[in-house]
Amino acid sequence: MGLKVSDPLASTLVTSDVQTVRIGVLGCGNVGAAFVQLVEAQRSFVQRRTGLRLEVTRVAVRNLSAPREVELADGVLTRDSHGLVSDPDVDLVVEAIGGIEPARELILAALANGKPVVTANKELLANVGAELYAAADAAGRDLLFEAAVAGGIPIVRALRESLHGEPIRRVLGIINGTTNFILTKMTDAVESGGEADYATALAEAQRLGFAERDPTADVEGFDAGAKAAIIATLAFGAKVVAGDVYHEGISRITGAEIAIAHRLGYVVKLLGIVERDADSGEISVRVHPTMVPLQHPLASVRDSFNAVFVEGEFVDSLMFYGRGAGGAPTASAVFGDVVDAAINLRNGTHGSLGVLEPATVRAIDETSAEYLLGLDVADRPGVLHAVTGVFATHGVSIRAAEQEGNGPDARLVFITHEARESDVQATVRELRELDVVRNVGGLLRVIGD
Amino acid sequence: MGLKVSDPLASTLVTSDVQTVRIGVLGCGNVGAAFVQLVEAQRSFVQRRTGLRLEVTRVAVRNLSAPREVELADGVLTRDSHGLVSDPDVDLVVEAIGGIEPARELILAALANGKPVVTANKELLANVGAELYAAADAAGRDLLFEAAVAGGIPIVRALRESLHGEPIRRVLGIINGTTNFILTKMTDAVESGGEADYATALAEAQRLGFAERDPTADVEGFDAGAKAAIIATLAFGAKVVAGDVYHEGISRITGAEIAIAHRLGYVVKLLGIVERDADSGEISVRVHPTMVPLQHPLASVRDSFNAVFVEGEFVDSLMFYGRGAGGAPTASAVFGDVVDAAINLRNGTHGSLGVLEPATVRAIDETSAEYLLGLDVADRPGVLHAVTGVFATHGVSIRAAEQEGNGPDARLVFITHEARESDVQATVRELRELDVVRNVGGLLRVIGD
Repeated sequence: MGLKVSDPLASTLVTSDVQTVRIGVLGCGNVGAAFVQLVEAQRSFVQRRTGLRLEVTRVAVRNLSAPREVELADGVLTRDSHGLVSDPDVDLVVEAIGGIEPARELILAALANGKPVVTANKELLANVGAELYAAADAAGRDLLFEAAVAGGIPIVRALRESLHGEPIRRVLGIINGTTNFILTKMTDAVESGGEADYATALAEAQRLGFAERDPTADVEGFDAGAKAAIIATLAFGAKVVAGDVYHEGISRITGAEIAIAHRLGYVVKLLGIVERDADSGEISVRVHPTMVPLQHPLASVRDSFNAVFVEGEFVDSLMFYGRGAGGAPTASAVFGDVVDAAINLRNGTHGSLGVLEPATVRAIDETSAEYLLGLDVADRPGVLHAVTGVFATHGVSIRAAEQEGNGPDARLVFITHEARESDVQATVRELRELDVVRNVGGLLRVIGD
Repeated sequence: MGLKVSDPLASTLVTSDVQTVRIGVLGCGNVGAAFVQLVEAQRSFVQRRTGLRLEVTRVAVRNLSAPREVELADGVLTRDSHGLVSDPDVDLVVEAIGGIEPARELILAALANGKPVVTANKELLANVGAELYAAADAAGRDLLFEAAVAGGIPIVRALRESLHGEPIRRVLGIINGTTNFILTKMTDAVESGGEADYATALAEAQRLGFAERDPTADVEGFDAGAKAAIIATLAFGAKVVAGDVYHEGISRITGAEIAIAHRLGYVVKLLGIVERDADSGEISVRVHPTMVPLQHPLASVRDSFNAVFVEGEFVDSLMFYGRGAGGAPTASAVFGDVVDAAINLRNGTHGSLGVLEPATVRAIDETSAEYLLGLDVADRPGVLHAVTGVFATHGVSIRAAEQEGNGPDARLVFITHEARESDVQATVRELRELDVVRNVGGLLRVIGD
């Protein structure tokens, strides 16, 4: 990274009462290494502005001899991560190892030792976040985690602080770069008149490093689900965990569905959606492919970019857009948290999520949406009548219907008005039994404008 | 505003050690009134989560008998704004009157009396911000101002905290809703094959309440200029004031320019641009109409929406999108600051911008950009040679040239490579002297992808 930072005023403005904050970093992969570089690059800027001198004094890794992108002074590298979190030469801990254990016990130990912690670990927070937030409050230290959701995009701070009191109705997020990349490639193929194929797009994502060799966590929505749980916790002040999240991935999305969506003025995106019912207080948290109207700001979020769209009673619509992954953007988010935690440590204060309420999570069956449904049918008189009768039986109202092709290739496409998931699923089950219906295509939920 | 907030847990979770924070509000226009409503709506949510009970105890207005959108308890309304900022029944002051005086002296008095201040006053901060930030630090109290830039969009907190240490290269902002509305209408007219006329679009904006009867502050870029000065101060930690900002407005933009931009794959937006040269540390702050490539995320920011696009060395690209004005969105930003300031007040701490450096501002003549230039010319042999010779003389390199029409209506359109403003201005002056050039059209700067 060709970083150049001019420093013309450093010598004149540095005051003598500079305090050094010594940072211990757990893990030195992409994020850890970029963070160490950022500390070097911005040390004098932060020192001039805050009077705090940031220094990385320990970096714990599993393998001391592995090649790394950063140079570290003698004595900084260690294999002893448990020693790091109790080291008297460490004031503040950055956790960049991921996974639940040993990250959890290391963070708890650091907090118990009075060290603020900055983490990028979504899996950990989505599963045992409440325990960690409580431990941070008990210790009177920061536990900050901007980088855990949407990489470099400062959505965590926005929800924690800026929108602390905003009555948030819904948050829609493109919070997984891998799936957005794959869906963008499939959409581009359709728009340029070609065939959109999931396997081809996935292979390209893997070749370019946007997808893992085993892509399950991304393409089946687990990664987005963990982030959605964290977003729901912040947006509604309630304890939502990964297990509360309903998720469907993109691996069964076909080119035909993308093409239909395109023709009807939509683009298919994998969204994390968190919603709170104003009357009951029930929270719905889900991840699934969604038809987004082309004029919606989320529709133009392409490739591996992420974006989070917030709908509030007073603030109306907000969108936050940027790089959801990658070493440098994630390190930027970690660094912002580190500066914040360092200032708070000096001032003897810390941030808090406050009291989190138990969450009442609405089952997916109880949620409502508009749906797109495609049926391969026999093209003969009475088919539309038979099919629409099934919708009517289950109280699912149709907003638009159209037929594509005819003869053996006839296909009916329906968009419903807002309907309950359970009613729509019952409709689908009964449609499958009709002898005029050859196949019921994927069910796509639609977000309104 | 049909606000419904459920409160099923209020009775069980409210603890007995609730602290009340008493708020005095200066001004009760759109923003002040919406803020008072938001306090009512969200009181119990904030209390459950933070243990703080927010109460509006004083609202100072000029005219006690004017009609208002909110009901206030007896004794809350007062005409004595100076009394409010020293009132022992006020813990925290919200300034929503605007303008420089008396806002400045009221804020200074409130801070001197130990009361944190939240303000939405861009004009004040862009002119005497440094004095106020210093007063807040001296008093050890918060001076928060999320609402001063881009209404409900939390860009101030993002720059103050999340991106505190990020090496920011450039910020591009659509930070005036009036001009974005007008330019959107003109662009829509061109896209639908009609005529784009500035006066017609302005009249529509005025009719719909998006433009003042005297639209000068918006359409000539003064409003955006004040916000750009604040953004530059935050992004670079330097004292930039409104007087440092070069600004050109949109009142001379013609339908022909919008049409050319459209045909070349651009859309015209009024941008506030702040940039810092990594080598010299010089800061450039300017507001002018700009050609934005259609695939750039700023291009799809329509109507009166605002958006701020941040380019950083590590974080790459970020965009923040939302409502830049309006009572409710602005009140949402004020409310987030109030909750933050109330928590800090209880904890005996406050936020700070830190040490701001003197700014070295680069004159517009010294800045560089790509330019679009349209020339009405005589259509005869040698014209292109004569014209391009003028560009060459001044070292301005041409990236693309094309001719529209012929005979008396011939028009040449050039897009330059990156060139210095002073060289381009010298080119324009010399082109005006050429006898083959009938008219030199507006000069539009172009941002790259």
